[in-house]
Amino acid sequence: MDMTIGCTRWAIAEGYIPGWSHGPAPELESHETCCILNAGERVANVRITIYFEDREPAGPYRLTVQPRRTRHLRFNELEDPEPIPRETPYASVIESDVPIVVQHTRLDSRQAENALMTTMAYACD
Amino acid sequence: MDMTIGCTRWAIAEGYIPGWSHGPAPELESHETCCILNAGERVANVRITIYFEDREPAGPYRLTVQPRRTRHLRFNELEDPEPIPRETPYASVIESDVPIVVQHTRLDSRQAENALMTTMAYACD
Amino acid sequence: MDMTIGCTRWAIAEGYIPGWSHGPAPELESHETCCILNAGERVANVRITIYFEDREPAGPYRLTVQPRRTRHLRFNELEDPEPIPRETPYASVIESDVPIVVQHTRLDSRQAENALMTTMAYACD
Amino acid sequence: MDMTIGCTRWAIAEGYIPGWSHGPAPELESHETCCILNAGERVANVRITIYFEDREPAGPYRLTVQPRRTRHLRFNELEDPEPIPRETPYASVIESDVPIVVQHTRLDSRQAENALMTTMAYACD
Repeated sequence: MDMTIGCTRWAIAEGYIPGWSHGPAPELESHETCCILNAGERVANVRITIYFEDREPAGPYRLTVQPRRTRHLRFNELEDPEPIPRETPYASVIESDVPIVVQHTRLDSRQAENALMTTMAYACD
Repeated sequence: MDMTIGCTRWAIAEGYIPGWSHGPAPELESHETCCILNAGERVANVRITIYFEDREPAGPYRLTVQPRRTRHLRFNELEDPEPIPRETPYASVIESDVPIVVQHTRLDSRQAENALMTTMAYACD
Repeated sequence: MDMTIGCTRWAIAEGYIPGWSHGPAPELESHETCCILNAGERVANVRITIYFEDREPAGPYRLTVQPRRTRHLRFNELEDPEPIPRETPYASVIESDVPIVVQHTRLDSRQAENALMTTMAYACD
Repeated sequence: MDMTIGCTRWAIAEGYIPGWSHGPAPELESHETCCILNAGERVANVRITIYFEDREPAGPYRLTVQPRRTRHLRFNELEDPEPIPRETPYASVIESDVPIVVQHTRLDSRQAENALMTTMAYACD
C-alpha cells in the first residue's frame, strides 16, 4: 500500500543552536533536529534554506531521504555550503520533490539538566 | 450528539525513546506517548507503522480505541510484532478506520530533572 | 476592525495532571492549562468535555470568554460537574458558539526543576 | 525563485512572561519569543495585538521584517505603546501585509534549570 503522506514545502520560524552543553555527547549535546519522514515509495530530494536576521539566506543544503525511511538531521551538522553559526537566531524552509513530514526539536543542555521542545513544522503546499 | 472529530491518517516525524531514566517508574520513566482520542460513537481500529533511518518499517501494530475514550499508548510498550529499539531515531504513521485525534509527547528523565515536549501530530486525510 | 479568528471545535488528545509539585504555588504548582483566545466582538460560550481511558466522559464544563479577552483555564480548577482526577490520562474537546483559538500547556514541577510543554490544539470546524 | 510562504494572520492563545530568572542574561533570562519568518521578496509590515483576561487589548505593536529574513522578537522587549506586564496571562494576534510564518517559544528559567516549550502559531487566512 502506498503510504505517501505530507507536503512538499515546510517552514520552521524558530531556530537557535545553544552555545554550550552539559552531559555526554552526542545524546545530551545541545542541538536542533529537523526530523523528516518519507513514508512514500520514491526517494525524496530535499533542499533546506536557512534564514537569518541580518544577512542573506544560506543554502541550499541538499540531502536525500530514502523511501520508507525517516531521517533526523541535526542542524548542527550541516556543513555544505557553510556551517550554521551557534547562538544565532535562524529559521528554515524545507522543500522536497515528493511529500514528506517535517518536525522540529531542540534539546538544550546548557544548564545541568536538559530542556526539550518540539513542534510540527508549518506545512504549505 | 455525535462528537466525531479528527482525521484517519496522522504522522509523527520525531521519535526517540531515551536509553535511561531517573525517578520513580512508571510516572517518571523516560518514555514517548502516542495520545489518541476517539470522541465518536464507533470503535477505532488503529494501525501504527514505525519508520527507521536504516531499515524497513516495523508493524503494523494494531490496537483499538473504544468509542468516547482516549488511549495514551507508550511506544515503549509496543511488543507485537517487535519492540521499538531504544536510543534509535524513528517516525510513525497512525491510521484509523474512523476519525481520531493524535498527539505525541516525550518525557525524558535521563538527567536528574525531567524534560517534556509535545505536539499535535500532522493530520493528513 | 473585527478580529474574529479561529474555529468552533478543538481537540486535545493529551492530558495528565501530575500528582505532586515543587516550588511556590500557584506559579510553580504542576498544572495543565487550556488557553482560550476570543479575539472577536461576541461573548464565547464554551463547553469542555473530558474523555478518559476507562469510563464515560465527564462534563460538559461550561464557561464564558468575554469579547477581546483571553482566558487561561487550569484543568486543575474545574469542579462542576466534577473535578478531574490527578495522575489519570485524559483528553478534551472544546466547543464554542463563536470562533476561538485554543492552546494546551503543561507545567510539571514534580522534580526539583520544572518542565514545560505546549501545542496548539487540533482545530476542526 | 520566490519563496513566499505562510499566512497573513496568526494567533497564539498562550502567553506568560515569567517573573524571575536564573542564569546569565540575555541567553537564559526567562522570556517569550515570537519567531517570524518572511521568506518572500517584499518587506512584511507586522502588527501585533495583545489580549488580556481582564482589560482591553494593548497595541498594535508595529514592526517590519525585511525580505528573506527572520526576526525573533522577545515579547519582553515590546515597549510601544506599552510594555507587557510580567506574570500576567496574555494572548496575541499577529497580522502582516504579506505571508509570514509565526512560531511561539518560551524559555522559563525561574528554577535553577531552564524549561522550554514551542509551537507553531495558529494560521488563519
